Amino acid sequence: MSTALNLPAVTVLGLGPMGRSLAHAFRVAGVRTTVWNRTPGKDRELIAQGAAGAATAEEAVSASELTVVCVVNYDAADAILRDDDVTRALKGRTVVNLTADTPVRARDTAQWAAAHGIGYLDGAIMTPAPSIGTPEAVFLHSGPSDLYERHLPVLELLGGTHTHLGEETGRAATFDVALLDIFWTAMAGYAHAVAIARAEGVTARELAPFAQGIGAILPPLFAEFAEDADSGTYSGEINPITSAVSTMAHVVEVSESHGIDAGVMRAVEGMARRVIGLGHGTDGFIRVAEMLGRH
Amino acid sequence: MSTALNLPAVTVLGLGPMGRSLAHAFRVAGVRTTVWNRTPGKDRELIAQGAAGAATAEEAVSASELTVVCVVNYDAADAILRDDDVTRALKGRTVVNLTADTPVRARDTAQWAAAHGIGYLDGAIMTPAPSIGTPEAVFLHSGPSDLYERHLPVLELLGGTHTHLGEETGRAATFDVALLDIFWTAMAGYAHAVAIARAEGVTARELAPFAQGIGAILPPLFAEFAEDADSGTYSGEINPITSAVSTMAHVVEVSESHGIDAGVMRAVEGMARRVIGLGHGTDGFIRVAEMLGRH
Repeated sequence: MSTALNLPAVTVLGLGPMGRSLAHAFRVAGVRTTVWNRTPGKDRELIAQGAAGAATAEEAVSASELTVVCVVNYDAADAILRDDDVTRALKGRTVVNLTADTPVRARDTAQWAAAHGIGYLDGAIMTPAPSIGTPEAVFLHSGPSDLYERHLPVLELLGGTHTHLGEETGRAATFDVALLDIFWTAMAGYAHAVAIARAEGVTARELAPFAQGIGAILPPLFAEFAEDADSGTYSGEINPITSAVSTMAHVVEVSESHGIDAGVMRAVEGMARRVIGLGHGTDGFIRVAEMLGRH
Repeated sequence: MSTALNLPAVTVLGLGPMGRSLAHAFRVAGVRTTVWNRTPGKDRELIAQGAAGAATAEEAVSASELTVVCVVNYDAADAILRDDDVTRALKGRTVVNLTADTPVRARDTAQWAAAHGIGYLDGAIMTPAPSIGTPEAVFLHSGPSDLYERHLPVLELLGGTHTHLGEETGRAATFDVALLDIFWTAMAGYAHAVAIARAEGVTARELAPFAQGIGAILPPLFAEFAEDADSGTYSGEINPITSAVSTMAHVVEVSESHGIDAGVMRAVEGMARRVIGLGHGTDGFIRVAEMLGRH
């Protein structure tokens, strides 16, 4: 599977913005890169730059020991990988699936791979396509350690930091989903704050430096609250959840006085009020994590 | 209104954790500090340290040219300030109201103050009580510039940074509510992420360093998205809102597969889907701010 110069060979399946960035980074690093995409034509620019094309996914995965998959979700990945010819061609090779989906789907794919003699690593990319090939890229991986160590030198050609989260296949997807939960919820809070500020005559640019200040205090609080959550102590001495809800009510009131949907904050306030209802009003807000996990 | 040493004198109304911190900082700075709280007894420690007590709010506000108010909300502030005796005693003096509430309430209080010959500055404290008297404290102010400049030297004895956001009384409250919208929404995302991580066997401590990484990328995005929001350009080239919703759906799916309430993310996803429904699926997520403002 090696070229004359003994460089590794990689196949990239899926040539959306992220897949193209991955293939580009491999090729620039001197890897023999074979590319394939279900919709034709997306490989044109990469082939012009020196990547190898393939008429079928089977042909593509046959060209390399390692296949990296990055498509929209696991339905799309399954549609490619679980084709009989492709599955057969992958036997004895390794798939690194960087497609985003749920931990359940990741574990299911690992089972399928094991049943067909295919090495399988699951992964997630936490940074946008332009970060690939730069120090900013962040990759999370899970699956067999030996397989990870064997392929890490090639994966590192994608730049950034690579973390192996453990052998349990679902871990990369779990971290991915949890981190994107934080990201999109925070972004929703920001977009909503911009909307109410503008309704009150304050521009987004005026708010931005202060919003950045709020953003800057989050990481140390995340670390502090993680200790609280894991130790089961939820100190609300500085900021009890009963104080938090009065702030939340102000956000809802200002929003709705301008006809702005406050559904997100209403849901946040609802969680906080459930914690109070359960008798934990003097605890800190992170008690919400424990309340959500009760069944 | 000055002491023999010509130091300023300040009255602090409201001796919850924040009010006590404010009074303590003034006293430590050598200001003659008079304190009062509706519920008796909260002034005991401060008086033992050298603050002056007062039998009534009227007596308290009569002791200083400047009165700082910090109570739970404007209902509580009004109950103190709009008492006839207190209002009369405040005539010709200045109130700095650091109580958190909505911009509408702030403007209403400014009108009341103007009608009674009372100088009025509205403000907000963006940092917790232990920050008072340290460089970490963040104070926002709005109201007449001359009044702000006159009292700034005394306010600066509280430490931290003080920003005058303009003469329009509601601005401090608007920034306050918008910033707390970001803060509590982001914290809700974090608490929720911890809940789903734990349901998948990942501890909060394991997640924390990566959560901190997500927190660190927010401030530059806030600045970038503020430009988009104010200029009406919503580039989704790197991350179109159509991609974001597929991530959001994963968060909902993983949550609900563990019986974890996904109401916040469902509301976030709903906003994103409305943007797509309005024909802006290729835009970036900050288009949500514009969508929320439509009527």
